[in-house]
Parts: sequence; C-alpha cells; structure tokens
Amino acid sequence: MSGEEKGKKKIWGELSRRDFVKSLGGSALIAGTTLGGLTLPGPAEAAFGDLPKKWDITTDVLIIGSGFAGLAAAIEAKNAGAKTMVIEKMPVFGGNSIINGGDFSAAGTKMQKEAGINDSPELMLKDMLKAGLYLNHVDKAKIVAEKSNEALEWCINYIGANFARLTYHGGHSVKRSHQTVNASGSELVNKLLQKARELGVTLENKTKLTRLIMDKKGRVVGAEVKKDYKFPDESSGKRAFIRAKKAVILAAGGFSRDVRLRLVHDPRLDERFDSTNQPGATGEVLLAAGQAGAMTVHLDWIQLGPWASPDEKGFGYVPLFCERLVGYGPMIDPKTGKRFFKETGNRKERADAIILLGYPVLIMGDAYAVHKQVFPQALEKGLQSGAIKKFDTLQDLAKFYGIPEKEFLSQIERWNSFVEKKKDDDLDCMIFPDAKPMATPPFYAARLWPKVHYTMGGLYADKDARVIGFDFKPIAGLYAAGEIVGAVHGAVRLGGVAMATCIVFGRIAGQNAAREQV
Amino acid sequence: MSGEEKGKKKIWGELSRRDFVKSLGGSALIAGTTLGGLTLPGPAEAAFGDLPKKWDITTDVLIIGSGFAGLAAAIEAKNAGAKTMVIEKMPVFGGNSIINGGDFSAAGTKMQKEAGINDSPELMLKDMLKAGLYLNHVDKAKIVAEKSNEALEWCINYIGANFARLTYHGGHSVKRSHQTVNASGSELVNKLLQKARELGVTLENKTKLTRLIMDKKGRVVGAEVKKDYKFPDESSGKRAFIRAKKAVILAAGGFSRDVRLRLVHDPRLDERFDSTNQPGATGEVLLAAGQAGAMTVHLDWIQLGPWASPDEKGFGYVPLFCERLVGYGPMIDPKTGKRFFKETGNRKERADAIILLGYPVLIMGDAYAVHKQVFPQALEKGLQSGAIKKFDTLQDLAKFYGIPEKEFLSQIERWNSFVEKKKDDDLDCMIFPDAKPMATPPFYAARLWPKVHYTMGGLYADKDARVIGFDFKPIAGLYAAGEIVGAVHGAVRLGGVAMATCIVFGRIAGQNAAREQV
Repeated sequence: MSGEEKGKKKIWGELSRRDFVKSLGGSALIAGTTLGGLTLPGPAEAAFGDLPKKWDITTDVLIIGSGFAGLAAAIEAKNAGAKTMVIEKMPVFGGNSIINGGDFSAAGTKMQKEAGINDSPELMLKDMLKAGLYLNHVDKAKIVAEKSNEALEWCINYIGANFARLTYHGGHSVKRSHQTVNASGSELVNKLLQKARELGVTLENKTKLTRLIMDKKGRVVGAEVKKDYKFPDESSGKRAFIRAKKAVILAAGGFSRDVRLRLVHDPRLDERFDSTNQPGATGEVLLAAGQAGAMTVHLDWIQLGPWASPDEKGFGYVPLFCERLVGYGPMIDPKTGKRFFKETGNRKERADAIILLGYPVLIMGDAYAVHKQVFPQALEKGLQSGAIKKFDTLQDLAKFYGIPEKEFLSQIERWNSFVEKKKDDDLDCMIFPDAKPMATPPFYAARLWPKVHYTMGGLYADKDARVIGFDFKPIAGLYAAGEIVGAVHGAVRLGGVAMATCIVFGRIAGQNAAREQV
Repeated sequence: MSGEEKGKKKIWGELSRRDFVKSLGGSALIAGTTLGGLTLPGPAEAAFGDLPKKWDITTDVLIIGSGFAGLAAAIEAKNAGAKTMVIEKMPVFGGNSIINGGDFSAAGTKMQKEAGINDSPELMLKDMLKAGLYLNHVDKAKIVAEKSNEALEWCINYIGANFARLTYHGGHSVKRSHQTVNASGSELVNKLLQKARELGVTLENKTKLTRLIMDKKGRVVGAEVKKDYKFPDESSGKRAFIRAKKAVILAAGGFSRDVRLRLVHDPRLDERFDSTNQPGATGEVLLAAGQAGAMTVHLDWIQLGPWASPDEKGFGYVPLFCERLVGYGPMIDPKTGKRFFKETGNRKERADAIILLGYPVLIMGDAYAVHKQVFPQALEKGLQSGAIKKFDTLQDLAKFYGIPEKEFLSQIERWNSFVEKKKDDDLDCMIFPDAKPMATPPFYAARLWPKVHYTMGGLYADKDARVIGFDFKPIAGLYAAGEIVGAVHGAVRLGGVAMATCIVFGRIAGQNAAREQV
C-alpha cells in the first residue's frame, strides 16, 4: 500500500470514529440503520418541482461521484470540449475505487500475450455470463469484454497508470486481472485525478447531490446540492444549484453501506452486517434517479464476502487468511463444535449458510496449513489486531470460543480422516492434494461473519450509458456509469471486472454527454 | 372445469387468435416483443403533468384490476362505506385469478384439523422464507401466514366460495392447499364478483389505465384511462379521467406476459418463452406506478414452469404429465440422446438447465409409469392435442424426434440400471420405490420448454398495502395488493400462497383505502 493510500485510509478511519459517533442521534432514520455508528444520508428530495430562480454554478457536464467511472467520464467529456465538473460528497476523492484491490480484468492484452495466455473478449464474456447466472444484459457485458483491452491501454498509455502483474480470480477461465503496482485502485484513481486536473476539470469535494432538477419536458437540467457537506451530518452544508447544460452523469457507486436500501432488496442484510466498502457507499443518488423516473434492475443481487471478520473493520486481513485455508482447514459452528457447510463452496453459498446460523463461525488451521498457505504479512497483521488468534492446543481454542469440547475434538478427528483419504463424506469439501490432518500446533482461528462487498444491481442504463425511465425511454440529459448501473454483471460480478466496467462505461458516458445538443 | 370457466377460456382463445394476429404490425415495440402474435400494451405516460380540466367519473376508491386482490379490496372498501369502482382492461373480469388452479394455502384451518394435520402460521412462514431464499419481507410474509386462515374463512363464510379438498404442493411442510370445488380460481372469482355486484361496486371492463394522476403535492388523485379499450389494440379506446377521492389501489397482477419487462430483469426470457398466464398479464400498471416514483423490488425473480410444453398454449396438459413422471422416467436431450439434468430438481434448476441447452427437451415414460402416475384425463387430452405422443418402440420414438438412436438406447439402458438399483449415479435423480425400468410399450413422450408462470417481484408496498416511493415514504393515495406487489414470496413463491396473499392484502388495501381522510 502506498503512503498516499495509507493517508486516505486514515481519513476514512477518522471519519468512522469521529463523525459516525456524532451522527448517532442525527437525521431521521428507520429503526436500526446505525451500524457501528454509521448513519445513512437522507434520501434526495423529489426530482420534480420548480426550477431554481438562480443557478449558482453553470457547467456543460456535471458528474456525481469521483471513482473510476466518474473520473474517466470527466476526462472524456472535457476532451470532447465540454466544460466539466465533478462533485464528490466525501472529503476525499476516489470513492470506493481508491480502496479497491487494483485488479483490472481485460482480455487479449499485451501482458497476457507476453505471459503466453490465450484469451479473447468472447471467452471473457462467456465467463461473465456464466457467473452472472445469465441475468447479465448481454449487449452491455459484451461491450465491457470487447473494450476491456482498449480501456486498459488507455489507463496505461494515456492516463499513465502502472500495472505490474497478472492475477487470477475465481470464475475466470484464464489469468486476466491486471494488478496495479501497489495492488490498489489508488494507483489509477490518483493518475486519473491528476489528468482531470491537468485538463481543467473542476473537482469539488464535500458536495452532495440532494435532487436532480428536471424541466417541464422531463429533461434533467441540473442538480440541487449541498456544498461544504460533512458526511454523514445531514444538517451540514449549504444549498446550491448547479446547471448542467448538456447532461448529468451519475457515477456515485454502489450502496453496500446503505442499510435501508439493503433491507428492501435483501432483508437479511441489516445492521448486523458491516461492509468492505468506504463509508460513503450509500444509495442516495440511486434514489434521486428513481425519483426522476429511472428504472432499476437486479438490486437484490448484493454480493457478500463470507471470508470477512466481525473483529476488524472494512476488508481487513481475515479474508486473506480464510481464503487460503479453505480446503486445508475446517469451518466450525462454535455452538455445536461441528462443521456446517462445505468450506470450498462459493461466496454466496457460504455466506447464506453462515447467515442462516445467525452468528459468526470459525475458520481454522494448524501451523502446517497456515504457514504453508497464508501470506506471512496477513497473518502477522491479523494476529496483531486480534482478528486472528493462536492457540497451543485444540482444547485451548475450544475453551476460548466456548465450543463444546468433546463434540469439537471428535469433529476434528472426523475432518482429519477426510483429509487423509482426500474425500469429505459429510459436506463434499474439496480437499487439496497437499492438505494434511490438523495436528501440528499452534492452531490458528478467526471468526467469520459476512460483509457486504458489492451491489450488482443499480440503474437500468442502455449501451450508450443513458439512464432508462419507466417509460422505456432514455431520461433526457441523464447518464450513468460504474457500480450505480446494474445488469452488466447479472447475479454475480467476477473479480476485476468492476474496474473494467467503470473505465469502459465511464468513458462512453463522458463522450456521449459531451455530444448532447441542447 | 365449470361451464362458466370454459366459456371464459374460450374468450381468451379467441382473443389470442383474432386480436393478436391483427396486432403484429401494431404499436411501437422494441424488436422481438411479439410472441405468438402478442403485442404488449404501450407503457403509461408520465404521472406528473397537469390535472385534467374535468373529471369524467368520480369515486372514492378506484381499483385497477379484477382478480382476487382487486375484488377483495373492492368488497372491503365498499363495506367500509367508500364509493368503489373496479376497472379491468380485458373484456373478461377475473384477471389471471380466473385461470389459476384454485389452491388456497392456509395454516391451522378447520379442514386441516378435520384431516388431523397439525399446522401453524409459524410453520407456514418458515416454509415461505425457506423457499424464498430468505429474501422475503418477513413482516409481510408473516401477515399472510397469520391471516391466511381468517382469509379462507372469509372466502367460505362471507363470500360463499366452496373448497373441497386439501392438496399438497412442494416446499410446504404439510398439506395446506385448500382447493376449490372446481379446481380453479374461477370458483372464488365468480363468488367475489357476485358479492361485489350485490354490494354496489361499479365494475368496468375494457378500461385500461394509461397514467396515474398526481396533484402538486405528489398525492395520487385519480387516473387517466381508455374506455372501450380492445386489448391489445393500443389505438382503441377513448380517453377518460377518473377521480379517486380517497385512493387508487393497484391490483393488476404480474407481468409474466410482458416480454419487454421480462427482458430487462431476466434477459433470457425473450419471445421464445410463452407464459401460462392470461394474455393481459402485462406490466403497464407497474410502469405507471414507477413513473409516479414507486420503488420496485425483486423484479428479477421470475418463476418458470420447466414442465411446460411448446406444443400447447398456456398451462396445458403436459405439466400434469411431466410432474407425475419425474422420478419414474428420464428427461432426454434430443440432440445427444442423453439425460442432462436431475429430473427431480426444483423448478428453477430444471428450467435453467433447459434454457442453457437452448431448445426443447423430452420427458418420457413407458406404459407402466404413465398409466400408474398420470391422470387418465390429462393423458387423453395431451394425446388429443398432440402435445403428448405415443410410440410402439423406443426406436420409433427416437426416429420421430430425430434423436441419435444408438446413444439414446444405451442411455435408456443406463437409466434402467439406475432404476433397478434405485440410485442414479449420473445426476442424482430421486428414483421412487415403485419405479420400474422403462421397458413396457407403448412409450409416451412430450417436449418441454419452460413457460413464464409467476413474477415474484413487483412494487414495494408496506404492511398496510401502501406503495412506497424512492423517498422511502408512502405515496399518498396509492395502495397495491396481489401479484403486482413484490417481496412477500422472496425468490420463490410456494404453490397456493398467491391466493392467500391476494385475499389477505387485497382486504387490507381495501380497508385502508376506504379509511383515507382527504
């Protein structure tokens, strides 16, 4: 992680301590939507209503959100000759992109060719559709696959971002994730920000959308915002009106942190669920578009990370511990001392099984498995924070977590017998060839409770990035790109495809918005 | 089937021949939305806009749709003292309810007690949530389970509908579907219609909603409609304005027949897919609510019947053939001659597997299985229509369907070996104890291609049946009940629960709408 990014993470950390606690008694909420002190921003007001008497700011293209999609849109809009402004509600630019893993999935790239990997947009599309349970809008998924290489080249050659290595994510047929040098989206966000500034894009942080403004014909002509907004204090900020002569582009990301919206679409995901996302990943821009008549799609497909720990904030280190141990160590229900679900099940299956139990479970491994599989740094950091624990004996482990000892030890014996014969008679877990019975102390364990990771659903936009209304027509003057748009990924997003989607459709939105004739 | 219902089915049949063909070159459509000649009604116009200069009709409560939910709402609204009007776009009242199977799931009923069945609302709720993959809105599912018995009693004692027997549907823990005497929803629809008329509810058919009318404050105050509308001819009908002094209740059913809406939410479900629903099961009322700022939920959970035949219209007879044969006879991919998916898989699994192949498959059985399992009348009707075929030899069967004979015969041998040992080594199909190898001629077969059966998703309404907007507030003056409302069933609706939901929430909507103080 770069020093720059660390600084940004620190700001989020401070925010989550300072402002979140302050906000506990804050704005109007439905019961139970304060999570670890997180208060959700209030929804936007109605889109219809009178035009403002006076516009405070006038631009051609107004972009809401400053992650990959928003910044790519801004650069393209500016390059196409439009006066362009980006607003960001948080104090830091970059949205969730700045804390993402920096993996850019692209097919048929130079880096792949150099590594002797035979890939194609057709194969990438096939992988996306299979993972998406064929709910993906094929036309848009196809554009992402087909333009992924061009978009990556643009990031490298025009934006100047550095990609260092190819990585693999489950569900892809080949290695096609191109990882930034610092294994973080911040590499690309910072270079995009630099380019946008060089080009003369106006960038305003602490500026929150409160409603989209439409004229009598139903065209989006601007936005009401709060300037000097201090997330998440809804009483902060001053009202201002921004006129967008050509178009507004919504690039405000997903709603993984928005408990209220989550509860509508997947009612299990209440305040018991933390998120790997930055605190600003809330849905008020999606709601504002809905009030302007925008159709939404697939909002109930909310991706959970079953590898997350309730004992650390955000993404944390336990995922790196857990995902390297599945197939090497058992996942245990602490109430019964027994295994309860196939450790190598997919993300959704495992998360569903844990949620059904209703409390955190344990993933564990002995010294052999952990030292063989887990990156030393992740282990060290997890132990330091206390999210990963180390025990001399299985008895100590059972005692610490309050697991019924007899049942637990007999279950470990049973697990070990499966590992020896490389076949799990109980739950059909894949046991890897080099796995060994869990017998070498010390023993390591971490608690698991799913976190909300990504929202596949969002606005219904067409392949030109125009937002579609409930009348099946594009809403004039309104575009969207990035995680706020649904249906590219269908039911399940594959690793690294978010970054490709943001750049591909961010660019399309920026180009088309700048071309609007008004 | 009663004579009355036969008459109604005949009208649908005539419609589908006469008007559908006429409409092929009709109103503006996206490519590929004519299915068997079916043209979709155009979406409603914008909800906002000026109030009409003159209202043509004034009522207290206006109900859109005349199925179970709409009629139950009408009766309750009228009984609560409100002037009540029901409009129906089709020439026949009853919506899809009139062709449903007449199964009413309810827990803790008199009929269950008499049969010695121990059931409770808690158990019914548990079954609903499990089937719904826990995506159900628990508060509303709970109301359905808790009020199911009271609603059934109301249908029997107050409405005068006759229920004759308990039936079982997959996913329920006990027998709790109460079937009408004629095994059709028409029994209840006709009694509801009779009661509504007796009470003085105004009922207008051939009257289609074109938009909801809102006042400046965002309250729904009425509707613009087309009177004398001839489904599906969008050029037919005369514009009229109906004022609803208290409220509008949306009870217009699901969108199983709406190819355009299906394509947004499950892009696989194009014009290749017929529906078991009546032709009017289209989504324009849902769209009109969306334009009025209503939030939608779970629209991508569209239930398919994997037991349907492309060789007959609507629900047909093949489902009764297919569902009785699973576990007794194999399902064959005609291109390879091989089995391809567990015959006893659930609806969704089987439909997904067939769609992935991309063409119809076969279900088959020999004389032993078919005569043992299939209702003679269903077999006879299916053979008459040609949707079920009979062959003297397996070779004849292979020849007729163009199946590679050698592979097919070897696959049947393999299937027979599984049946003998009661264990399917290939696909883990459940083989029932009384199943026998497929060896007794004649052999029967039918082609299978999924049909759209039910849309679990819809509007987001609260437990008082108020429609919720994108600002999380109820839209004043707007209620909804029945299949047009989402989230009661979550991902999957269990058999018979639709009828319970329609009556329970129809009544709630009618009672609350009549109570509105304006």
